[in-house]
Amino acid sequence: MAAPHVHRVQIYYEDTDHSGLVYHANYLKYFERAREHLLGVDALVRLFEEDGIGFVVYSAALKYREGARHGDSIEIRSTVKPGSAYRAVFTQEAWRPGAPRALVTGEIELCCVDREGKLVRLPDSVIAQIEAA
Amino acid sequence: MAAPHVHRVQIYYEDTDHSGLVYHANYLKYFERAREHLLGVDALVRLFEEDGIGFVVYSAALKYREGARHGDSIEIRSTVKPGSAYRAVFTQEAWRPGAPRALVTGEIELCCVDREGKLVRLPDSVIAQIEAA
Amino acid sequence: MAAPHVHRVQIYYEDTDHSGLVYHANYLKYFERAREHLLGVDALVRLFEEDGIGFVVYSAALKYREGARHGDSIEIRSTVKPGSAYRAVFTQEAWRPGAPRALVTGEIELCCVDREGKLVRLPDSVIAQIEAA
Amino acid sequence: MAAPHVHRVQIYYEDTDHSGLVYHANYLKYFERAREHLLGVDALVRLFEEDGIGFVVYSAALKYREGARHGDSIEIRSTVKPGSAYRAVFTQEAWRPGAPRALVTGEIELCCVDREGKLVRLPDSVIAQIEAA
Repeated sequence: MAAPHVHRVQIYYEDTDHSGLVYHANYLKYFERAREHLLGVDALVRLFEEDGIGFVVYSAALKYREGARHGDSIEIRSTVKPGSAYRAVFTQEAWRPGAPRALVTGEIELCCVDREGKLVRLPDSVIAQIEAA
Repeated sequence: MAAPHVHRVQIYYEDTDHSGLVYHANYLKYFERAREHLLGVDALVRLFEEDGIGFVVYSAALKYREGARHGDSIEIRSTVKPGSAYRAVFTQEAWRPGAPRALVTGEIELCCVDREGKLVRLPDSVIAQIEAA
Repeated sequence: MAAPHVHRVQIYYEDTDHSGLVYHANYLKYFERAREHLLGVDALVRLFEEDGIGFVVYSAALKYREGARHGDSIEIRSTVKPGSAYRAVFTQEAWRPGAPRALVTGEIELCCVDREGKLVRLPDSVIAQIEAA
Repeated sequence: MAAPHVHRVQIYYEDTDHSGLVYHANYLKYFERAREHLLGVDALVRLFEEDGIGFVVYSAALKYREGARHGDSIEIRSTVKPGSAYRAVFTQEAWRPGAPRALVTGEIELCCVDREGKLVRLPDSVIAQIEAA
């Protein structure tokens, strides 16, 4: 299996809450940023504007082990596999470099929808991108 | 002059940053929520979907005196006046009830744009709404 | 079993993304707001400030069926049961009133930590609150 | 005068609202991320943890000319000068590379506060950093 895709996220004031740690919902944002880079930002924009196809999250399951802090620079490590003709399954983890285990782990399933929000098969270009990842 | 429009905002974990106070950018969100209620959420949705007209922020000027905390229930007090045929000017303040002065004060100017993002005059329905506020 | 706790959430511009639907991570925010009301905002502030005890999310599992839109007023319906001496388990759903099924459903597990971030048992006051909910 | 500090921001789904453009409050986040890098993230963390000194926004004035879109990679260009012994004044702009003018411009004033939230003079290390910027 290929090495995971790595996307670096800097933790700013905006990311923390009054506990001093990253607000739990923000890991979904970091995972989504990483998926955009893994799939290709320009390809996503083109798919949406030219073909009217967008991605939607179908399910998300997260486990929180430890919290990132202001000033941390964390790594999002992502792998992806096709779940079906309609679904891509991402395994994503947030790591503080050098730590013995991931801070947060997640499994996120994505589907594709057309302009009316109707479910469509994953486009061939996306499947090729997933298989190459 | 009419009494200001009052919109109540509860401060949750998501609103604070590691200082324990509300993250400064969030007051722009609270002011925007209050403007949606002042102008009428349903009217805004209809204006956008039927007439293709949306509001955009043209300028925002904020002064921060004191920060709201987790658990606070603050009031956004808003007044509005027409700035020109193209611009509505909102004066908005965040108050902790019973406090001697506002936590944060702002002046926000809004314009209207069509589906292509081109500037258009404020619709008559909006001017009427502003004059009645 | 008791009726679920209901918390109403208005969907503003800030909540949507360029798809016109609510950004997927925001449902974690709405669920968290609902939990704060269910457990009592003042009780949470007191627990944190006086006893140094805070809640952290241990796991979150979400299924997305349909997206809320700008202008929607949705209901978060929440129930809670103790998972163990250390864990509270919330079942939470986002409903558009009158719809035949929930837009989004989730199961969220919370733990308590002290000021050093060490896991502690759920305080008696919280267990009482959970059992009464 | 020195060249402005440049910080690059990628625009993700999370940044846009239903207009397809970046939600207006987010520019305050981008400007803040840029200030953290200009002042030094590690220096800010150390100042807060060791000396109990944090920065707070005192005022913010923004003008919006054009909106960034999903997929854009914009530049935040920042300069800073001391406003007084208590205040640092940042001039910050968001640029789409190659565009004839800034999308959004802002002037943001910051103060320093101690652990009790009391106003304190800008630390010498910060003044040195500002004068070198």
